[in-house]
Amino acid sequence: MEFQYSQKARDLMARVSAFMDQHVYPNEQRFFDEVATGDRWQPTAVIDELKAKAKVAGLWNLFLPESELGAGLTNLDYAPLAEIMGKVQWASEVFNCSAPDTGNMEVLARYGNDAQKERWLKPLLAGEIRSAFAMTEPAVASSDATNISARIERDGDHYVLNGRKWWTSGANDPRCKVLIFMGKSDPENTDRHKQQTMLVVPMATPGVKVLRHLPVFGYDDAPHGHAEVDFKDVRVSVEDSLLLGEGRGFEIAQGRLGPGRIHHCMRLIGVAERALEKMCRRTMERVAFGKPVAEQTVTLERIAEARIRIDQTRLLVLNAAWLMDTVGNKAARREIAMIKVAAATMACDVVDWAIQSFGGCGVTEDSGLPHLYASSRTLRLADGPDEVHRNQIGKLELAKYKLAK
Amino acid sequence: MEFQYSQKARDLMARVSAFMDQHVYPNEQRFFDEVATGDRWQPTAVIDELKAKAKVAGLWNLFLPESELGAGLTNLDYAPLAEIMGKVQWASEVFNCSAPDTGNMEVLARYGNDAQKERWLKPLLAGEIRSAFAMTEPAVASSDATNISARIERDGDHYVLNGRKWWTSGANDPRCKVLIFMGKSDPENTDRHKQQTMLVVPMATPGVKVLRHLPVFGYDDAPHGHAEVDFKDVRVSVEDSLLLGEGRGFEIAQGRLGPGRIHHCMRLIGVAERALEKMCRRTMERVAFGKPVAEQTVTLERIAEARIRIDQTRLLVLNAAWLMDTVGNKAARREIAMIKVAAATMACDVVDWAIQSFGGCGVTEDSGLPHLYASSRTLRLADGPDEVHRNQIGKLELAKYKLAK
Amino acid sequence: MEFQYSQKARDLMARVSAFMDQHVYPNEQRFFDEVATGDRWQPTAVIDELKAKAKVAGLWNLFLPESELGAGLTNLDYAPLAEIMGKVQWASEVFNCSAPDTGNMEVLARYGNDAQKERWLKPLLAGEIRSAFAMTEPAVASSDATNISARIERDGDHYVLNGRKWWTSGANDPRCKVLIFMGKSDPENTDRHKQQTMLVVPMATPGVKVLRHLPVFGYDDAPHGHAEVDFKDVRVSVEDSLLLGEGRGFEIAQGRLGPGRIHHCMRLIGVAERALEKMCRRTMERVAFGKPVAEQTVTLERIAEARIRIDQTRLLVLNAAWLMDTVGNKAARREIAMIKVAAATMACDVVDWAIQSFGGCGVTEDSGLPHLYASSRTLRLADGPDEVHRNQIGKLELAKYKLAK
Amino acid sequence: MEFQYSQKARDLMARVSAFMDQHVYPNEQRFFDEVATGDRWQPTAVIDELKAKAKVAGLWNLFLPESELGAGLTNLDYAPLAEIMGKVQWASEVFNCSAPDTGNMEVLARYGNDAQKERWLKPLLAGEIRSAFAMTEPAVASSDATNISARIERDGDHYVLNGRKWWTSGANDPRCKVLIFMGKSDPENTDRHKQQTMLVVPMATPGVKVLRHLPVFGYDDAPHGHAEVDFKDVRVSVEDSLLLGEGRGFEIAQGRLGPGRIHHCMRLIGVAERALEKMCRRTMERVAFGKPVAEQTVTLERIAEARIRIDQTRLLVLNAAWLMDTVGNKAARREIAMIKVAAATMACDVVDWAIQSFGGCGVTEDSGLPHLYASSRTLRLADGPDEVHRNQIGKLELAKYKLAK
Repeated sequence: MEFQYSQKARDLMARVSAFMDQHVYPNEQRFFDEVATGDRWQPTAVIDELKAKAKVAGLWNLFLPESELGAGLTNLDYAPLAEIMGKVQWASEVFNCSAPDTGNMEVLARYGNDAQKERWLKPLLAGEIRSAFAMTEPAVASSDATNISARIERDGDHYVLNGRKWWTSGANDPRCKVLIFMGKSDPENTDRHKQQTMLVVPMATPGVKVLRHLPVFGYDDAPHGHAEVDFKDVRVSVEDSLLLGEGRGFEIAQGRLGPGRIHHCMRLIGVAERALEKMCRRTMERVAFGKPVAEQTVTLERIAEARIRIDQTRLLVLNAAWLMDTVGNKAARREIAMIKVAAATMACDVVDWAIQSFGGCGVTEDSGLPHLYASSRTLRLADGPDEVHRNQIGKLELAKYKLAK
Repeated sequence: MEFQYSQKARDLMARVSAFMDQHVYPNEQRFFDEVATGDRWQPTAVIDELKAKAKVAGLWNLFLPESELGAGLTNLDYAPLAEIMGKVQWASEVFNCSAPDTGNMEVLARYGNDAQKERWLKPLLAGEIRSAFAMTEPAVASSDATNISARIERDGDHYVLNGRKWWTSGANDPRCKVLIFMGKSDPENTDRHKQQTMLVVPMATPGVKVLRHLPVFGYDDAPHGHAEVDFKDVRVSVEDSLLLGEGRGFEIAQGRLGPGRIHHCMRLIGVAERALEKMCRRTMERVAFGKPVAEQTVTLERIAEARIRIDQTRLLVLNAAWLMDTVGNKAARREIAMIKVAAATMACDVVDWAIQSFGGCGVTEDSGLPHLYASSRTLRLADGPDEVHRNQIGKLELAKYKLAK
Repeated sequence: MEFQYSQKARDLMARVSAFMDQHVYPNEQRFFDEVATGDRWQPTAVIDELKAKAKVAGLWNLFLPESELGAGLTNLDYAPLAEIMGKVQWASEVFNCSAPDTGNMEVLARYGNDAQKERWLKPLLAGEIRSAFAMTEPAVASSDATNISARIERDGDHYVLNGRKWWTSGANDPRCKVLIFMGKSDPENTDRHKQQTMLVVPMATPGVKVLRHLPVFGYDDAPHGHAEVDFKDVRVSVEDSLLLGEGRGFEIAQGRLGPGRIHHCMRLIGVAERALEKMCRRTMERVAFGKPVAEQTVTLERIAEARIRIDQTRLLVLNAAWLMDTVGNKAARREIAMIKVAAATMACDVVDWAIQSFGGCGVTEDSGLPHLYASSRTLRLADGPDEVHRNQIGKLELAKYKLAK
Repeated sequence: MEFQYSQKARDLMARVSAFMDQHVYPNEQRFFDEVATGDRWQPTAVIDELKAKAKVAGLWNLFLPESELGAGLTNLDYAPLAEIMGKVQWASEVFNCSAPDTGNMEVLARYGNDAQKERWLKPLLAGEIRSAFAMTEPAVASSDATNISARIERDGDHYVLNGRKWWTSGANDPRCKVLIFMGKSDPENTDRHKQQTMLVVPMATPGVKVLRHLPVFGYDDAPHGHAEVDFKDVRVSVEDSLLLGEGRGFEIAQGRLGPGRIHHCMRLIGVAERALEKMCRRTMERVAFGKPVAEQTVTLERIAEARIRIDQTRLLVLNAAWLMDTVGNKAARREIAMIKVAAATMACDVVDWAIQSFGGCGVTEDSGLPHLYASSRTLRLADGPDEVHRNQIGKLELAKYKLAK
């Protein structure tokens, strides 16, 4: 056993950290200021500037395991980079490493045909367009994938799509040119996991309509946003749109899940580290009842708990990444579920403690904390509520003893 | 011992509930729609309409204990009304029972001179103007009142005020015409609780400048808002402005605290009841993995915990109100501190459980829950962080044994 | 609403407290010393001495609502007395107010025939014998009463009993002369709540055999103890044994539950108050890192939380008692379930915090705390695990909205 | 990074597991039966038998890093063996790997002179005698080492010892022949960490008197036990007794701490794994309200949380072990403190959940759980309460930013 990042990872960590220090942190507020000025739903200049710099610096598409297209990193080697990027809410995009493009690029690289790759993967890899992922539906408990009700009907060599999706993050962004759509193509299939198909759908297709953005705890997350999207008689050709094969949507969804989970969780660790740093700095400066707040044992306890929880969670996530790299996503499904539950809960708690330590400033944007809380809290629901994942983990644990009986 | 509200309270509860059913719930969304349309920082028509109706219905100024001016209710009798109003975020204003006007009216009624009453209390009681309270400062830990740094300097028969305040809620509202200002008039006084003075300051006074509104978890709470206000060489006459006496600001602050605490806490109980109702209704409707989410034992546990926590907290708050009514605020200071800690924490937890039970919808405004969370969370910091109050409670507990030694 | 005990209750509180101060606290350790010396399973002299004194003082059978036999107190008036007695583990017996005799006396007073009253109730009321209650079974989840498997078979004018019971507390005590037995007399009855019958069974009946005592966290609770009892072909006459009627055992069990729940919960509050007092006194005396442990804010926080939790729980229990007194046990079943969950969890937490505050001494009997923990922890399982009660509370909450649909 | 145990560790894990399966589990109850029969404070035959077998199997002194004397394992390689042994409360002794002998042997191997090694280390390594460690004192908060009040006074070439110690675990065992004693030899030294000295003291020395054993939650832990020991004018020669040097007791204590911490924490992980296994098996068997308790989502949630907490904590402990092996105990002091807090809290929680899942059986020894709880709970206090360690962790975290300022 060896608890040190690989040399390759450490080198990239140093380079990404240096880039953050030089280019991202100094511009952190500028991003929010640009969004607050004029049309919130237009891309910011700061992101475009920094993307160009990151590309030049060779810090681009680091997430992509396929070596000819990306950096060729394992999940374990990429993980600490996601943590570093996670410390600033908008930093991942600078390195072309932001969701949902990362998952979509992986899907296209793995399951797309040549035309799909040329038309969509290429500009995504170049950071020229953005993309969205349309899976969750407002009308049903989407954590149970068999509940999905959007329809994909075959009509000769075309599909006709109908349905309503939400949490289609990024669809509000004018740069978003394409989305991957999950729907039921074969609702009568007795194998409930073969009823779904995934399709590539250009945003410009008639019948695709962004209805609104969904604010999260009052944040619109512009210009990215979380869209509710209506699909009404949307026609796409089978050749242009089909991914992997009819009835294989669930299979793609499962494969897409693992690496994205690592990214999310490591970014949450970055969030928690940032919040802890803020808590330390603030409480050291602030004097109440005769001494710095940091010297109160209640403060020290929270800081200690935060450090313990963060370190435990990071190790759990890295272990999951290592398992994915060595035995595969399927064998690591328990760990992939575990980090979902552990990381978001931990980040919510640590950010909440930091908020409390800031006094009244804690709930305003001056502290930068409530936005971190809102996005961490959302991840306790994204990909299905924690409760669904805990059930799965519990069942996997019980299964050990069922076999053993 | 008797655990039933008085007949007087029950009659008013029925009337306020009927008003809520008839006028407030049907307009709940309309308020937010009006705010979202046009200038967010203008008063809404819906509030004005409903204020008129509430006045006609005799449901007006219910909070005010002084019988000739208000409804003459005890804290205990008013408490359940605050709970009912608390179920809709903006409802208290309809009954002219919303903070910080309530506290300001109490202060003016008790400590204002005749001219101050005529000029400010009268239109406040009539619901014609609004007011603000300027105590907390961005630069210091204001939970330790001796930290307050805003200056009040005497210049003949005038005071000159300088300082920066924030969380001056309501100052953003164009109807806000006056604020009560707390500052240090005698910073060298060896009795640290006699250094402060409270003054009535018209918003229109030169040098009073609202700098910005402070969003709370992304919510601006328009048109009320939470302002940061600068005071630069603000001159007010002693006669017009002085409350109670120089050096008696701390004394007023203490007296102002108790009833407001009951109001806040009971509103939080209303918030929690509303969230619990939403959780019950949603989980009964939503089916996942073959049965309604409500039938899962994890859901039942959360609902049960919510019911226990709400009922426990309500009893604690009512007991504090009863003590205030019977032995006074000073003897009840332990209980007043206890409900501060208990109610906000409870409401945060219950709302959070409700959010989780809603799935992805939980973090959007469709559920109505994240805004409730944001305002409940803020109350863990308002009037000083929970930690400060827990310290005080702990010390009062220890004092029993110090005396006994 | 009125948050003060009745004059009657306050008078008795003063008398019971005075008796505790004069007779119980000074003998607290003597009880444990007597048990530790010689045969642990013999009654102690100290209890006998104090029982005589309590009888003389008129502090006897205070629990019993029937006025001609007991003190004629309501549940609400008796509640604070149970709290005071609960502060010393063995004190209730001194006042002839200890479980399971209290519940058994209530059952006999309400449902026993004259002969049963003469033979068993009379000496129980006189404190001359003790009794046990045989309901829970080791082989099944007894929280689901329909699981009970002990058999009662009719054979002419006799019943024949077979089965295994445990947690038959007090059956180890040589003074225990009788037990009340719950078994299935009609397992095929389609109404699952009419399958059970309750019988009075003399301990001396052939076939009744105490197999062992069950230690709780290492404590045998001698000389009372918790027995596992075997019933093998135990014959009792119908006339001597039957309570209320065949098939009405569940009905009796339900009625027996409410007052006992109040007693248990109030004693738990007494336990928590005692633990909090110990925590305060210890941390004020103990110096670490330059100041008394009590002055650390972590200590103050725990003390404050303990005070809040205790006061909240007491109010919840008193409210349940008031409901039982005013609207009856059935209408108060939600509250009776709620206090079960709230009180035991609270007491466990408070005692645990006290243990932690004592350092190494906390886990030994020098602190007196681990025994309190063990018995409080047991009450999270007695009468069914908390989980069962939370489910019931949750369902009652949901029912509001089912009706309302 | 590599999350797999070394080949060496895996081989030993297989061998220790096989030994446990073959010899320890089948005798698990026999140990407790032997203790319960006759004189509790005599060694058991079962331990002696199994020690002989373990020695033959080459599974002996595995903890000792020094290769010529022990197995030469790193902390990281020994850690999983401690976990496996931890699953049965008395198993470590079978492999001569039980506290406090392990720590004492390390100290003697590192700091003892040749005579001390010959006289004490040799028979300890052979498992022929046992030893104790006398540091904690009843009269002071011993987590603050400067509080230690036992005196060591020099008298020519002898020391005279006076003081009272407790938690001197194992001193009740008749095989215990020696203890290591920590006392103040130079109370006036301005360097508070140079006031203490450590001495080797034969149990048979006049003036050493075991006063009593301290039960833990009702468990006496016989025949090992936790002793309170009086030292009255105990004379030992400097040559026979002195370890390392006068005034260097604190230094030895610090060095002794790290490996023992790893052992304790990994055993706690074994405890938690055992409890989780029991919880799974029990809830799968037990039916309530129509289905196995294991299928209730509340049960699944607890099992999932237990799995997450256990895995997180194991990774944290292994990381600490790895740091100790690679950068040393001093650089790893933050991690050594963190695992103390994390492991004992986790084990208490998991064992408590298991207890609850067992229903009434959970609090008796039939489940085997309450004893596990008692010993896990004790470890939240041993080596100083968690609060002391959290303070240290918090201060180390803050120090990062102090340097950076």
